Amino acid sequence: MNKPRISLIGSGNVATHLGKALFESGYQIAQVFSKTFEKAKLLADQLAAEPINDLSEINPDTDLIFVLVKDSWMMEVLEHFTSYDTLLVHASGSVEMDVLKPFSANFGVFYPLQTFSRTRIITFKNIPVCIEANTSKNVSILSEIAKDISGNVYQMDSEQRLRLHIAAVYACNFSNYMYSIAEEFLHRNNIPFDIIKPLILETAHKAMDSSPSMVQTGPAYRGDKEILEKHTSLLHSDPKIREVYALISDLITNRHELFKKLEL
Amino acid sequence: MNKPRISLIGSGNVATHLGKALFESGYQIAQVFSKTFEKAKLLADQLAAEPINDLSEINPDTDLIFVLVKDSWMMEVLEHFTSYDTLLVHASGSVEMDVLKPFSANFGVFYPLQTFSRTRIITFKNIPVCIEANTSKNVSILSEIAKDISGNVYQMDSEQRLRLHIAAVYACNFSNYMYSIAEEFLHRNNIPFDIIKPLILETAHKAMDSSPSMVQTGPAYRGDKEILEKHTSLLHSDPKIREVYALISDLITNRHELFKKLEL
Repeated sequence: MNKPRISLIGSGNVATHLGKALFESGYQIAQVFSKTFEKAKLLADQLAAEPINDLSEINPDTDLIFVLVKDSWMMEVLEHFTSYDTLLVHASGSVEMDVLKPFSANFGVFYPLQTFSRTRIITFKNIPVCIEANTSKNVSILSEIAKDISGNVYQMDSEQRLRLHIAAVYACNFSNYMYSIAEEFLHRNNIPFDIIKPLILETAHKAMDSSPSMVQTGPAYRGDKEILEKHTSLLHSDPKIREVYALISDLITNRHELFKKLEL
Repeated sequence: MNKPRISLIGSGNVATHLGKALFESGYQIAQVFSKTFEKAKLLADQLAAEPINDLSEINPDTDLIFVLVKDSWMMEVLEHFTSYDTLLVHASGSVEMDVLKPFSANFGVFYPLQTFSRTRIITFKNIPVCIEANTSKNVSILSEIAKDISGNVYQMDSEQRLRLHIAAVYACNFSNYMYSIAEEFLHRNNIPFDIIKPLILETAHKAMDSSPSMVQTGPAYRGDKEILEKHTSLLHSDPKIREVYALISDLITNRHELFKKLEL
């Protein structure tokens, strides 16, 4: 099978990381679209592609078009692709595949499960990619591409992918928010954030070889009411953050008690 | 300065990791106490120490005694040390140093900021240790010991240490709880937890070289209401977990809007 010629709609973090991984695996990137020409050019130049900032300039002969824009903007972009044959693919966890149906005879989803940032170099090889497509032929095409750039390829329907995305919100977005509460609280108290970094890293590493629910620690888990009260009373000036403390501590305590009962 | 002879009250995770680090750095461990003799012996044997399970057997000539039991049990243990000269030290984040005052003329705190588990090998060298003591001489003693086993030693009073402990609860206990929600949710939906591990690790690594509040991602941060509604409606069968989703998403959204305003 010849490698398909690919275009990218979007020039954000996902487009950048995916585009580079594809390019490095020998895929020809035809065009890169961004509303801002400079942004399109910045990425296109790295991928030997043509930068465009007008969707009507998209070459309909491209084999595959990745639509890598914000979910909320995706429908507006797709309006430009009515009655295409080109394989239209989005990369969103929570958008069902069938939103692509009105716009092409060939469509699918290519969802890389990772948090991308402009500054960090990421090896795509370690990123799980979940694929879905409307025909078995298109599944094969996306599967080939996914295997070329990643060592972890899963086939998953839209329903399962949505659930996976929910889990990712807790594991990534919410855990990062916990870090940021810690960061702000330390900052307000003139304690360097650096002091807590080994703890953050070890907590994540523990989850690699143990079940997180089995290695839970902390005052809520131990049911240490005295410390829980000390902590919440110190958070009095920040009712929202205190609410987080109370809710999550309650959940940890209750689950621990449930576990203890089950062991009996 | 001669290395002080040390005894350990407790045989849990902290006692085990600290005891081994001290022993490997050439400290003589005199005794290890646990309520259960077998547990005392298990650790004592590894440290060439005497195992005991009766606090009255503690040798009062030991230079330093680490009280490494649950906070809630600490006072009961301390009652056995009235009118000692021995340097009495606890390792708790949220217990103020002065609880030790009635029990010895010499006392202090040695707080290693890490999450310990029995199964994971941890290099003490990378663990920040916060010390506090009642005299400058005792500060020196604890500081020497801390520097012998760790590369990150901080001097910190009880008030600051309590605040650090609160930050640690968010960064470690609560982020681990976020992992465990993800784990359970995936399990209920027949998706392997393994698929989400690279994401957990990358999220933690991002916090090593960026400010977590600056690299926040996800639907709440993007203000993607459609996805937020999809997610919460799928969590309908689990009101507590949905409450976590709603509260944290609100906080992320509000802060992002505040940031955007500040940039104007």
